[in-house]
Amino acid sequence: MNKPRIVILGAGYAGLITAVKLKKELGYNEAEITLVNKHQYHYQTTWLHEPAAGTMDPERTRVDIKSVLDTNRVQFVKDIVIEIKKDEKKVILEKSELEYDYLVVALGSEPETFGVPGVFEHAFSKWTVNGARQVKDHIDYMFSKYNNEDQKRDELLTFVVAGAGFTGIEFIGELSERVPNLCKKYDVPQEKVKMYVIEAAPTALPGFDPELVEYAMNLLESRGVEFKINCPIKEVIEGGVILADGDEIKSETVVWATGVRGSSIIEKSGFEAMRGRVKVQSDLRAPEHDDVFIIGDCALIINEEINRPYPPTAQIALQQGEVCARNIKALIKGGELESFKPDIKGTVASLGGGEAIGLVYGKKIYGNSASFMKKMIDNRSLYILGGPGLVMKKGKSPF
Amino acid sequence: MNKPRIVILGAGYAGLITAVKLKKELGYNEAEITLVNKHQYHYQTTWLHEPAAGTMDPERTRVDIKSVLDTNRVQFVKDIVIEIKKDEKKVILEKSELEYDYLVVALGSEPETFGVPGVFEHAFSKWTVNGARQVKDHIDYMFSKYNNEDQKRDELLTFVVAGAGFTGIEFIGELSERVPNLCKKYDVPQEKVKMYVIEAAPTALPGFDPELVEYAMNLLESRGVEFKINCPIKEVIEGGVILADGDEIKSETVVWATGVRGSSIIEKSGFEAMRGRVKVQSDLRAPEHDDVFIIGDCALIINEEINRPYPPTAQIALQQGEVCARNIKALIKGGELESFKPDIKGTVASLGGGEAIGLVYGKKIYGNSASFMKKMIDNRSLYILGGPGLVMKKGKSPF
Repeated sequence: MNKPRIVILGAGYAGLITAVKLKKELGYNEAEITLVNKHQYHYQTTWLHEPAAGTMDPERTRVDIKSVLDTNRVQFVKDIVIEIKKDEKKVILEKSELEYDYLVVALGSEPETFGVPGVFEHAFSKWTVNGARQVKDHIDYMFSKYNNEDQKRDELLTFVVAGAGFTGIEFIGELSERVPNLCKKYDVPQEKVKMYVIEAAPTALPGFDPELVEYAMNLLESRGVEFKINCPIKEVIEGGVILADGDEIKSETVVWATGVRGSSIIEKSGFEAMRGRVKVQSDLRAPEHDDVFIIGDCALIINEEINRPYPPTAQIALQQGEVCARNIKALIKGGELESFKPDIKGTVASLGGGEAIGLVYGKKIYGNSASFMKKMIDNRSLYILGGPGLVMKKGKSPF
Repeated sequence: MNKPRIVILGAGYAGLITAVKLKKELGYNEAEITLVNKHQYHYQTTWLHEPAAGTMDPERTRVDIKSVLDTNRVQFVKDIVIEIKKDEKKVILEKSELEYDYLVVALGSEPETFGVPGVFEHAFSKWTVNGARQVKDHIDYMFSKYNNEDQKRDELLTFVVAGAGFTGIEFIGELSERVPNLCKKYDVPQEKVKMYVIEAAPTALPGFDPELVEYAMNLLESRGVEFKINCPIKEVIEGGVILADGDEIKSETVVWATGVRGSSIIEKSGFEAMRGRVKVQSDLRAPEHDDVFIIGDCALIINEEINRPYPPTAQIALQQGEVCARNIKALIKGGELESFKPDIKGTVASLGGGEAIGLVYGKKIYGNSASFMKKMIDNRSLYILGGPGLVMKKGKSPF
């Protein structure tokens, strides 16, 4: 009898943890597990605001897949997913094809432009290791260019972040913290640096407690950040952004952080989806496709309490990966499929320089204690993926 | 009786050493010494190939003037020289004017384009702290940009150095040494990186011993550098260079290192000069201007042995500063003016990664021993400027 073939697409939080857990749940002869990923590394998406702003070596955000996965047990294929042929039960990759009995789609997210023109052409929108490195190197380059031009151009030192959600705030937190050092290093007067955070919604950090939002905004403003709330962006152009009211902000650095949508492979493969997210069954399977699990940023799950979708977070992705692994085991070895129920322990947004805000087990936290908690959360995801060794190697010291 | 006013323009090797030595030669009441410089720091011009390639923190190349100069004795003015009115015995600065009894012109050099169009618009030509930082940040940016573009463009990873003289060779030495690390850091296949050194003259390192030149070229070629010798550049364009034979090399990074000319202030101020260099008297004074000393890269001195000018080097600039200080003392306190005679101890060109070539006291040296010597030479200039403290702080460990 043939072993069931399990194919996992994507080695982000959701996919990688599924692979790690499946290896533990199933014996050597019980399944053939294949993990497909574009790079030979996993990266900590939720850390990328740090290398993007230049406050962390990007190397620390990535984890070699072979260092956390027993490749004798899980076959690793470095390739790019082109399309899922769900009716033929196979996946088309750039260089090959894979047939499956069970598929786990964990392809992550793409930037959401909300139809604003010019984002992909003129803004930095890739929240990947490559993308974050480019933002950092671009910022450095703007500083070093400034003093070499006869006519000093303010737009070189003007930084625009589109979106005051989690990513935008965490990024500007790091950048605003780094600006004094950049100014010193590049002999630039600090008053020349302008930082804008532009948000279409009526508040920064929508969904966060207003008291915490105020704390964050005050802190960031004290570092020179200017907020433009309730202020949609009409267009990103070369050298700046045009706001809905017609005003233009000249800037050579526009970072797009208005949120994400699920992978476009989802729609391309014929799944019914909203912005690349499939409303999955409670057991995390795609409707009408009992052999396809969809988890992480491509999965849409409604928070019944507020009748709105849960946000795409690492916390939920990790939990889904664990449930997904157990449910695949149940399909293969028999047993009840589990319903996924997020266990939201808390949410902490870092603000750079040992500052953070958050809600942990329903309790508001600020400043150093929030920052401590944030680092613990970051280390926890490493622990789940690679145990204490990985925490020692890549983890953050909270002290 | 008024104290004679000595004004020194420029705090490069020549000007700064003049100020340091004058302070020692003259007592508190014997003169009023003023040093004018664009920045509050001196920098080690001969080290800039390292920060430009990214193998040294640019911070190490600069020395706060106040840390090496007793500003109770020497007044420091941070300003930009606009013109010397030699008949009115005054200097026009951007923000003020200074009258002098004795003037020391040590304004250094500017890039020489030899009339090639496009250099200032499309190449990196500023061999300053700001300029070197920009080259480094630009190179990093090219690497980080490469993987983020859907269509991988080879010109992002093609680096052109115009000029196989001292600066060009030392720069490509550092860069070629750093490329493997850059490739690793940015996930770029090393075979994608192209490095060209283009030289109009019939040899690299003109004036160097052919055996040493061959050693250097072989070493650099083994690191992937391609030389185009006897190959003038016709034009620098956006995105590359056009060679005299019509060929084009596409490159987003053209570093211009074909040599220097003296400061354009020299001609602007009506001194008779060749490419910004004044053929000074043997006592380092400008012809027909007994109150004006011209030293460093703005001074032209003929090497009678070969009937050609000495090259503008730090070694000669430092020696001129010392003679200049003693000659000013002689003018003020009486005594014979000294004739300047360069004492060429040797010339060593670093090739990156613990490699170098050179001629020291007439002896050819290679490899590690040459690299050791190079570091000693670099430390020596720090020692002359700021004593052992400065060597400890900014010097290079030869081990």
